[in-house]
Amino acid sequence: MIAALAGGVGAARFLDGLARVIPPKDIFVIGNTGDDTEVYGLHVSPDLDTVTYTLAGLADPIRGWGLKGDTFYNLEARRRLGVESWFQIGDRDLATHIFRTELLRLGLKLSAVTFAVRRKLGVRSFITPMSDDPVRTMVETRAGLLEFQDYFVRRRARDAVRAVHFHGSEKAKPAPGVLGAIRNADAVVFCPSNPIISIGPILEVHGIRQALLRRRGPTVAISPIVGGRALKGPAAKMMRGLKLSASALGVARLYQGIVNVFVLDNEDQAMASKIESLGMKAVVTDTIMSSLSKKKALARAVMKALD
Amino acid sequence: MIAALAGGVGAARFLDGLARVIPPKDIFVIGNTGDDTEVYGLHVSPDLDTVTYTLAGLADPIRGWGLKGDTFYNLEARRRLGVESWFQIGDRDLATHIFRTELLRLGLKLSAVTFAVRRKLGVRSFITPMSDDPVRTMVETRAGLLEFQDYFVRRRARDAVRAVHFHGSEKAKPAPGVLGAIRNADAVVFCPSNPIISIGPILEVHGIRQALLRRRGPTVAISPIVGGRALKGPAAKMMRGLKLSASALGVARLYQGIVNVFVLDNEDQAMASKIESLGMKAVVTDTIMSSLSKKKALARAVMKALD
Repeated sequence: MIAALAGGVGAARFLDGLARVIPPKDIFVIGNTGDDTEVYGLHVSPDLDTVTYTLAGLADPIRGWGLKGDTFYNLEARRRLGVESWFQIGDRDLATHIFRTELLRLGLKLSAVTFAVRRKLGVRSFITPMSDDPVRTMVETRAGLLEFQDYFVRRRARDAVRAVHFHGSEKAKPAPGVLGAIRNADAVVFCPSNPIISIGPILEVHGIRQALLRRRGPTVAISPIVGGRALKGPAAKMMRGLKLSASALGVARLYQGIVNVFVLDNEDQAMASKIESLGMKAVVTDTIMSSLSKKKALARAVMKALD
Repeated sequence: MIAALAGGVGAARFLDGLARVIPPKDIFVIGNTGDDTEVYGLHVSPDLDTVTYTLAGLADPIRGWGLKGDTFYNLEARRRLGVESWFQIGDRDLATHIFRTELLRLGLKLSAVTFAVRRKLGVRSFITPMSDDPVRTMVETRAGLLEFQDYFVRRRARDAVRAVHFHGSEKAKPAPGVLGAIRNADAVVFCPSNPIISIGPILEVHGIRQALLRRRGPTVAISPIVGGRALKGPAAKMMRGLKLSASALGVARLYQGIVNVFVLDNEDQAMASKIESLGMKAVVTDTIMSSLSKKKALARAVMKALD
């Protein structure tokens, strides 16, 4: 069994390849919920949904969020009511958020809701939030302390990031099965996600970092940074703002001690020896997942590195 | 100023005519909220919305609920999640319910939300719920005590009605402005709505019946029953279930003492003298609102009866 720590789009692409290379039911996805937010009074879990929709074959391939072919009539009607709507939710996507909010208000846990959604959408991999307790990623900028979606969606990640905080992480307990999966997995994979705001919050949940430190088997990370650029999202810019090297090496440094195999792109092979000096095995391969065959090739390369 | 007690479709049609015959801003609509319900965890106010959408020119003319040209993609997606969805909500209509629910959760009153919605949709008549406190119409049938929407939508009004209860009505206070409007209106109009479950709950709100009893000016009711059939909905069947005469006369009896002008259809003119013997002036006219010009003609006939 493979346990995968996952953010949004980058993770979803990698997992889509992985689920075509190993049996989907052997994948246990631990999703970031630091980006979760309340939108229109509804509980939205962007990263969990991106992974779920992608593995269900329903994700919009162009936008990088939401459902393929979704419409936005509710949003139009919402604008007519004069309400701010910088956070766009499609008509079909909305059903997920309404369903999730209903069940949470009835007292169900986010993990139970996530289970129900992925099952109903036909996803055979297990997907769970990192925690059923709220963790909220807050971004410190010159414009003040911003909720993640405010920073990311409304302000389009334009603010220089001075610090990142994960409100609630010290009190958050791992969701059921998470620690066991990390302990017992044949391998733990850090998906190619933003190390600060996608993998970072997962590592801050009480007990998860320790479980990773105590693991004996392989823990592999795939760099989301190639040639100093993020494959997707604000990772590189954010790392520079935090005075970190926006490179595969910078990512590897963040994972030192908990990761023992590090996958980086051909473009960055010059960094391999420095990464190895951090105590990791460096695996150089093509990490750009621009097609289904490339996704599968990366998944195969990762599986091979684990042998 | 005209104060109008209103249910759903029948009331909305009448008010649509009235707002073309007198200045819309001179109409103060007191809407039934006994049919309100929680759907998908959202607060739905069917009668308030039907009136608001109709006066905004946005109502679906065929279905009798929801918005013209609305789509149901959220509902499709909801079904894919495996959730019961006998209560259909269109994608655009959903925006109203989400907006309402958001504001109610923030602590706003239903009257404030209703004000905001009708203003944003360009409705110049004032529309208010009868009360900001919850009143829930419960229908006693052989199948048990049913929530109104369960009886009406899910079970399609097929159960014989033994009794109707308005949970919460004894504690419900009239919404701001309601008692003043009833006291000071040049006329109060009981729209052609179901006397049991549309007008009935309004009369049960604390102080409303008494305010009507104390009024000096005219109070006019328009019969929703023509020739023993309801213009819309289950009124006739419901009245028979309650051992009431399903006729204009039966409706007039329910309003005896609080209504002094009763408008009935040409088809029922034989009942006029019996209605007059209840202490009301009977006005016989065409009450079938099958076209815009007929709606306006009915509104003019009502206004004339008030002189």
